[in-house]
Formats: sequence, structure tokens, C-alpha cells
Amino acid sequence: MNEKTTADLEQLRDLIDGVDKQLLNLLRKRLDLVAQVGAVKHAAGVPIYAPQREAAMLAKRRAEAESMGISPQLIEDVLRRLMRESYLNEKDVGFKQVKTDLGHVVIVGGEGQLGQLFGQMLSLSGYEVKTLDKDDWMNAKHLFDGAGMVLVTVPIKVTCDVIRTHLTQLPSDCILADLTSIKGEPVQAMLDAHQGPVVGLHPMFGPDVGSLAKQVVVVCHGRDEHEYQWLLEQIQIWGARIVVAEPQNHDSAMQLVQAMRHFSSFVYGLNLCKEQADIDNLLQFSSPIYRLELAMVGRLFAQDPELYADIIFAQQGSLVAISDYLENYQEALTLLKSGNREAFVEQFKQVAQWFGDFAPQFQHESRAMLQSVNDMKVG
Amino acid sequence: MNEKTTADLEQLRDLIDGVDKQLLNLLRKRLDLVAQVGAVKHAAGVPIYAPQREAAMLAKRRAEAESMGISPQLIEDVLRRLMRESYLNEKDVGFKQVKTDLGHVVIVGGEGQLGQLFGQMLSLSGYEVKTLDKDDWMNAKHLFDGAGMVLVTVPIKVTCDVIRTHLTQLPSDCILADLTSIKGEPVQAMLDAHQGPVVGLHPMFGPDVGSLAKQVVVVCHGRDEHEYQWLLEQIQIWGARIVVAEPQNHDSAMQLVQAMRHFSSFVYGLNLCKEQADIDNLLQFSSPIYRLELAMVGRLFAQDPELYADIIFAQQGSLVAISDYLENYQEALTLLKSGNREAFVEQFKQVAQWFGDFAPQFQHESRAMLQSVNDMKVG
Repeated sequence: MNEKTTADLEQLRDLIDGVDKQLLNLLRKRLDLVAQVGAVKHAAGVPIYAPQREAAMLAKRRAEAESMGISPQLIEDVLRRLMRESYLNEKDVGFKQVKTDLGHVVIVGGEGQLGQLFGQMLSLSGYEVKTLDKDDWMNAKHLFDGAGMVLVTVPIKVTCDVIRTHLTQLPSDCILADLTSIKGEPVQAMLDAHQGPVVGLHPMFGPDVGSLAKQVVVVCHGRDEHEYQWLLEQIQIWGARIVVAEPQNHDSAMQLVQAMRHFSSFVYGLNLCKEQADIDNLLQFSSPIYRLELAMVGRLFAQDPELYADIIFAQQGSLVAISDYLENYQEALTLLKSGNREAFVEQFKQVAQWFGDFAPQFQHESRAMLQSVNDMKVG
Repeated sequence: MNEKTTADLEQLRDLIDGVDKQLLNLLRKRLDLVAQVGAVKHAAGVPIYAPQREAAMLAKRRAEAESMGISPQLIEDVLRRLMRESYLNEKDVGFKQVKTDLGHVVIVGGEGQLGQLFGQMLSLSGYEVKTLDKDDWMNAKHLFDGAGMVLVTVPIKVTCDVIRTHLTQLPSDCILADLTSIKGEPVQAMLDAHQGPVVGLHPMFGPDVGSLAKQVVVVCHGRDEHEYQWLLEQIQIWGARIVVAEPQNHDSAMQLVQAMRHFSSFVYGLNLCKEQADIDNLLQFSSPIYRLELAMVGRLFAQDPELYADIIFAQQGSLVAISDYLENYQEALTLLKSGNREAFVEQFKQVAQWFGDFAPQFQHESRAMLQSVNDMKVG
């Protein structure tokens, strides 16, 4: 680079510095204004996550951007990132308490990660939260006395036992709820153990989400729905979307959505380990997309094996799904070994046809997602 | 909501509108300034993607943000998104031409998607590009006359044939290069067919990337490296990172990075199809993360089956990797069927130990990536 170039670049960079300074000031201002919106909503008990208003606001900004020759997607992405930040900050303000005369909440398994998260959300919404962990059963009678809700979040393998053994003497108007990732047996156990209101919940996210905004909570109705309607409203105020499902329908979907997925990630990791793959070398060759895929497998192994064993061993039916996958893999491999390329292409086309409009939709959707992954700092 | 609340919210939203208006103006200004930087760099022939300068700038902004009580990650994410936009706009300006006395470039298979992308990048950098597709062989002699570089990008299964049959009469100083996703055989075929400079390239990205910034191009040296050094510089000016590899090392990594990955995604889709899974229902239950995973599978089936058949059938060795995975899956399934939970947990821990520091690193990395996916509009 010659001196002229260097000087030109320096000058432009000073100007960019100035713009960025203003940008920071604007971000500060916008976060503050949204926090004020949050405070007003909080006082009025309006949910923080308002998808329709959000969509309308974004549409307006996109149009404004377009008229200024700015890519509409750019302003949308920047504003979505800002909204995430605002959702995170929401926690500092607290949330509106929907039910003000509940009595206290007891979280059975409250020391676990998910128990802690729900304990925190409930506390931030003004509820009195007590936890009961495995060494506290001698205090159970005292803890349950006057409880308005008991929330069970213990490992799957002991959930039904805990319910049937320990939760048979709750106050009759107390709500009994659980957060187990299967719903059939736990909901039945709760209905058997307790005569009052019963509801099964499955939060479809890990405890490391920063905020519940946009996350999904599956609800399986048990008994006396009107008694716990406030809880579903409360969860929506935290930002999550409620999906109502039949326990059996939920459980069979989970065989594909959770058990199979975790199992195949597990085998992928196992396979890399047995092949003694050189991760550094693989990463060398990896564009951001493959890096993400590898990271999605690797992240499993930074977590609690018991949790994954729980999910994978929870349902007998998962074995069927997992075995079916093996069969299909085997068949496809046979095809591969026979060198029958035409048959592979034929089968590919059949699956593509079955996916129908979902395939191009997924391609479009994943492109945007992958671009956003691509922005990240990696390596 | 009462009137007071509505009025308060209206007023705050007006203020936010005003901030967003200023934000749009700032984005416009910043994009323009960066475009000017691009023009200066373009004239001086400096690469657009300057990782170290980028990192230094971001570190400074993060510190400034922190001093203003803004999350450093927020400003980093916003600026990275802006940088992506600037990279995209870069295309409109064109790129510096590293080699000004090359003669024209012939892209064999230039009508394919990847051929088109490279043709476009070369044209934007001032090179004269001619394409040769499968019906143009009668013009080959004329097209090759005076060519400075011939770039082969045809389906894998015919690559070596095309090279050995048609590319034996190139001008002696012409560079022969290919973009095939395996490197061993094509590089050897090029060395056999042509006595001049030879280089094998493997762009590790699909033709639908908006920009080459941050993408990886693997380079396998063939012959007369100094003659095509300019090409590697040119690719770096487009923003990509060059990774030099031995053909065999590259090919065996690709068995895991590409063949196995695509094959297992294929079987995943095949499995969903055979189980007649209800995609709508699965999506109902899906938080953004699972939606991404499903989209990553579904996107495969929106694409050309021949391309995937090419990659999967390209190497005999891939069969071994794919078979090994099957064996490990089978073993793990046997464990599962026996109900031996302890053995599963034990194996999980072994793999976790093998991943070592990569596991927590991947967890950390994927969390940030997933949060950015979570910001996206879905559903």
C-alpha cells in the first residue's frame, strides 16, 4: 500500500469510528426506551412477546429501509438482534404476576438446572418459591402445607415414583404440574396421586436459553383446566408459545424430535471417537456450516450424560424409531455398496416429492439461518 | 389495557420510531463509508476480508459498549451483520485483478451453478471468461487457443474422463485447475493430461453463498506453484481463506465431512418419509433449534440428487466411513435394547473425554450460533 492509500483509509476509518460512536448512543437510547415499554407492560400485565406488533413494526422498517436503498433484511436482522437484547433485559425488571393469591410454589427437584430456571422465572413474577430436593423429604409435609402449586422436575426415571410415593397428600386445591420431557405416564401418575388440578408441561428448550421469548412449552391438560389457566398466561407473559397436545401424540413426536435426534448425535460423536478423527484437521476443512454441525454434536458431550440417558431410555417406543432408522440406513448402504447410483437418485427423488413444498421452504429458511451463523466469529 | 397504558405505550413507540429513523440513516452512512473503503482497497488491490483489522476494530467497539453499559456481544453482532452486508455490496464494485496479462479463462462446465459463480467472480475481477459446456466440444480448439487458465467444474463421475480425453492439447503455459470435491484422482488426471501448471481447488461451500468472505477454499498443489500464485491471491481478495492440503489427506477428511454427513442426512429424510412423519406436527413441537435441524435435512431434498450422488459415490473409502457408522449405531442400539443404561452413560463419558476441551468450546460456540438462529423469524 502506498502512502496515499494508507492516508485515505485512515481518514475513512476515522469517519466510521464516528458513525459507530453514534450507533452505540442510539443502541443505548433504544434499549432504554424498550425497557420503559417493558416497565409499562409489566405494570399492566401485558405479555412481553407480541408477535403481531413485532411483525407490523418490522414491515414498516423494511419499507423505510427499501426507500433509502438499504436491504430490508439488514434492518430486520439488526432489530431482531436488538429485540433479543431487550428480552434478556426484561428479566431485570421482573414480570407481571397473573395470580396474586396463589400461596407458595414448591419445586420438587428445584436444585436441577430446569428447576432453577422456573424457580427464577416464578420469583421474578412475584411468587414465593420453595424448593424440595432429594434430601428434603422429611420436611415435605411442612413445605406442602398451604402450597398453591407443586412443580415436579426430577429425572424421568424417578418421576412417576416420586409422584406416586410422595405427592398424594397435597392440599386439595393445590395445582400439581411437572416438566418431564415425556407426558403420558407422568400425567397419569399425577392424576392418580392427586385429586385437585393437574397439568403436564414440557418446556422444549434447554436450561441455558437466555430468555423464554419464542420458545415452546407443550401443555397436556390433566384436570380442572380453569384452575391453572393463569399459569399458561404466566408462561406466555414470559414470552413462550403454548402448544396444547394429547400426551400420546406428544410422546410419539418426541421419539423422533428428541430420542432419535440425540441418539444419532451420540453415535456420530462415538463414531468420530472410534475413528480417532482429528478434530483440528476436520475444522481446518470446515466452512461455518459444517463447523456448526460438528459443534451441535460436540455440545452434547459437554452436558450431563444422565440427562441424555433419561431422554433416550424414557420410552420403549423410541427403540422402534431408532431401529427403523437403522434399517433404512442399512438398506441405503446396501444400495450404495451395489454401486446402484440410479436407484439412489430415484429414492432421493421420492423423498423430495414426499417433502413437497417443505423442501424449498426449508432451503430458503436455512439459507437465512446459515448466513447468520456465517457472521459469527469462528476459529 | 387501560387508556393511560395505551397512551404511554403510544408515546414510547413514537420515540422508538424516531430512534429507528436515525438508525436507518446511520446504517446508510456506514455502508457508504465502507463502500468507499472498498473502492480504495479495490484500487490498491488489498483483500476485502482483513480478519486481524476486523478483530481489532471489534475489540475497541466492545470496550466502548461496555463503558456505556451495553452488552459487548450486542455491538459485535450488529457490526458483524453490517460487515456481511458490506461484503455483499463489494460485488457491485468489482475486485482488483491480480494478474492483468493472463489471456482469457475457459470454464469447462461453466453453465453449472459453481461454474457460474466462479465465472462471475472472475469477470468482476476483470478477467475475460468463456464457458465450454457439454455441447461445445467442437469449439474446444478455438476456445483453448490463447487461454491463460482452464477451470474444470463438471460432475465428479466424468471429471477425470473429461480431463484425459479433452484437455491434452492446452497451450503449454496455460494453468489447468479444477473445482471437484475430491482431489486425488482429478489432480493426477490433470498432471497426466497437461505438462504446464496444475492446481486442484475445492471450494467448501455451495453456490448459493452470497459472498466468498470467510468461506474456505482447499488448495492441492499440482505443478509450477509460482505460475498460479496469483490465483490464490485472487481468491483471497474475494474474501475466502486458503487451506493447503495433500490430496489424500483432503479426500479422507471429505469422507467424514461430506459423504457421511450427506448420507446420514439423506437417511434421516428417507426415514421421515417411510415413517410418514407429519412434518407440520413435528414443527408444532419444535423450538427454533430443532426447526433448524429439520431444515438442514429438508434443504437437501430441494437440491439436485445428482450432485449428492456424485459426492456420496465419489470415493470407495466413503463406504468404509459410512459402514463404520452403521456398526457403531448397531452396537449402541444393542446396548439400548438391553436396557443397559450404565453402559450407555459410561460410553458417553468416554466420548466426552475424547472430545476434551472441544466439547465445552463447541457448547459455547453453538450457544451463540443458536441464539442468532433464534432471532430469526420462523413459522
